[in-house]
Amino acid sequence: MYEYSHGGNAVFENGARDIIDLSASINPLGMPEGVRDAIIRAIPDCEFYPDNSSGKLREKIAEFEGVSPDRVFCGNGASDIIFRLPRAIQAKKVIVTAPTFSDYERSARSCGAVVVRHPLFVENAFSLDGDFVKFIQLEKPDLVYICNPNNPTGITTEAGLIEEVLDCCSGIGARVAVDECFLNFIEKENQYTSRIFLTRYKNLIVLKAFTKLFAFPGIRLGYAICADEEFLQGLYFYGADWPVSGLAQAAGIAALTGAEDYVKKTVDYISIERNKVKKELARLGYKVFDSKANYLFLQNPYPFDLKEELDKRGIRIRSCGNFPGLDGSYYRIAVSTTKHNVQLLSAIEAITGEGS
Amino acid sequence: MYEYSHGGNAVFENGARDIIDLSASINPLGMPEGVRDAIIRAIPDCEFYPDNSSGKLREKIAEFEGVSPDRVFCGNGASDIIFRLPRAIQAKKVIVTAPTFSDYERSARSCGAVVVRHPLFVENAFSLDGDFVKFIQLEKPDLVYICNPNNPTGITTEAGLIEEVLDCCSGIGARVAVDECFLNFIEKENQYTSRIFLTRYKNLIVLKAFTKLFAFPGIRLGYAICADEEFLQGLYFYGADWPVSGLAQAAGIAALTGAEDYVKKTVDYISIERNKVKKELARLGYKVFDSKANYLFLQNPYPFDLKEELDKRGIRIRSCGNFPGLDGSYYRIAVSTTKHNVQLLSAIEAITGEGS
Repeated sequence: MYEYSHGGNAVFENGARDIIDLSASINPLGMPEGVRDAIIRAIPDCEFYPDNSSGKLREKIAEFEGVSPDRVFCGNGASDIIFRLPRAIQAKKVIVTAPTFSDYERSARSCGAVVVRHPLFVENAFSLDGDFVKFIQLEKPDLVYICNPNNPTGITTEAGLIEEVLDCCSGIGARVAVDECFLNFIEKENQYTSRIFLTRYKNLIVLKAFTKLFAFPGIRLGYAICADEEFLQGLYFYGADWPVSGLAQAAGIAALTGAEDYVKKTVDYISIERNKVKKELARLGYKVFDSKANYLFLQNPYPFDLKEELDKRGIRIRSCGNFPGLDGSYYRIAVSTTKHNVQLLSAIEAITGEGS
Repeated sequence: MYEYSHGGNAVFENGARDIIDLSASINPLGMPEGVRDAIIRAIPDCEFYPDNSSGKLREKIAEFEGVSPDRVFCGNGASDIIFRLPRAIQAKKVIVTAPTFSDYERSARSCGAVVVRHPLFVENAFSLDGDFVKFIQLEKPDLVYICNPNNPTGITTEAGLIEEVLDCCSGIGARVAVDECFLNFIEKENQYTSRIFLTRYKNLIVLKAFTKLFAFPGIRLGYAICADEEFLQGLYFYGADWPVSGLAQAAGIAALTGAEDYVKKTVDYISIERNKVKKELARLGYKVFDSKANYLFLQNPYPFDLKEELDKRGIRIRSCGNFPGLDGSYYRIAVSTTKHNVQLLSAIEAITGEGS
């Protein structure tokens, strides 16, 4: 019934600390300075319950995102919010793309909603287009997910298309959750973010996470932004109280202090490394898609299983065989530090030389 | 629609750090030694996702509880588990006592279940008796909650009665969640715990938390024990992945290292302090019930609002006016450090002298 279906768990296998784990796409720059000290300073306060509504953290997020604090809800990772959403909406039908992040579907199914998948095609480079709007019009869901950039493909959706989706969903009374957890890794983030539609479309929920951008998935912290404040308040009702630990609140506040520089540095670093890895993989014969995120999405034309081969060499990547709409020839690989990327490419070069 | 309904949030009001907060019942001995250092050591690992199934922590809990690790599920506080339960059961009808902890009811209502309250009466000193079994027999629920000791009354339920409830619920296909979050504060915990029934009754779920016993509500960590391992696995499906942060896993492991001494010390300390406060409150004319927990439950015979009066003196207690089955004359007060208890009693003595 339940099976763990994500990457990022290599470290727990026999405590194998020396595996290079590129199966989860975490910022290779590591936690921002200040996070560690903030956590340590927050420990004594953990003898109190945490602020249920993460007041100070929401203020800081609001500043970072350019919205009002009342339009922010903080959860135990974006996943926590993804599980509250269909419940708060009392969703009967949810639309997701295929492929995409699996928890949209699981959270919907776990509260009895029907999930309808809109297929993305390799012929179309896995990008979303106007057909999606027609699909929504036809299916009349209560909730639509757009992952931007999409996980695992890294393909972005233009703001113009998202606006059409919002418009269509307004008409049929559906809410739209745009997951921007990986958007801050992208150059010209402003060109893609749905934030600009928040005021106009009360049915829009933007999802963000600290997990990937600020490199602390182990702390658990995500948030939603929505202009429908009453709906946002409802998210408290549809899940446990005290979703965000005191340590996570402190870590989040610290991460956002001076975040602009950190984000800029990250974008520059990822951009250079992504291009290097992409070029090299293409040279080795892999079909590399146009990911704009901090991970690459590729198809292996060779007869061997790239994940298995890399595993033998102590490198873990994400096989995409369990994503609906994909098969075992597709992989997602995080863009990591220069050092890890070099090790990855040299391993892939060796494997490809032997196996092709 | 949603309103925060618990204690323990005084510290967030105007950052009033000097309020003595007795509205949440946290171990006055504070976090066990070792927790702080364990958290600090775990920070670098937060660049990885936490172990989704809290493997090492479950082993430690299993040892502490004398059960198998496969029978333990860890959540983001016991509250997280309380929200997964009715969903995993697909509960249509849930029985709670009135009064009791409000989240049993909210979690059930938030997934569409009907909640039926079994009233506890002051004439019966708010204790549960054989009528409860008849009530269950009649109502035929899918899920029954017993809070032992009950929150906010501190009244315990004998293992014999719980066995009758388990037996009755087995017959009608209902599950029984026994919340023992405050049980380790009690002398002769063994006389009350439902753990002994786990093997015989697969429909039993025992809920525990680190929050109160180990004094770190700010870290969020609770667990469920159940012999129906398939059901327990289902709890993963009905909520977000990575429920327990890496920091909380480390804190939990550290807290359980040498926990026996800490628990013994706690029980002795609470016992002495509870008796002192109880005796004094009774002397001042308050009706003090027979709480066995680390909090006292009382009724105020005087015309003033004790909470308001204590607030003026920088002490926060929990008014029980928002518990179904109670009114504003009832209060819950945590048994705290000797120093705080003395301050509390001297404030109450002054208030009572003026106001009675």
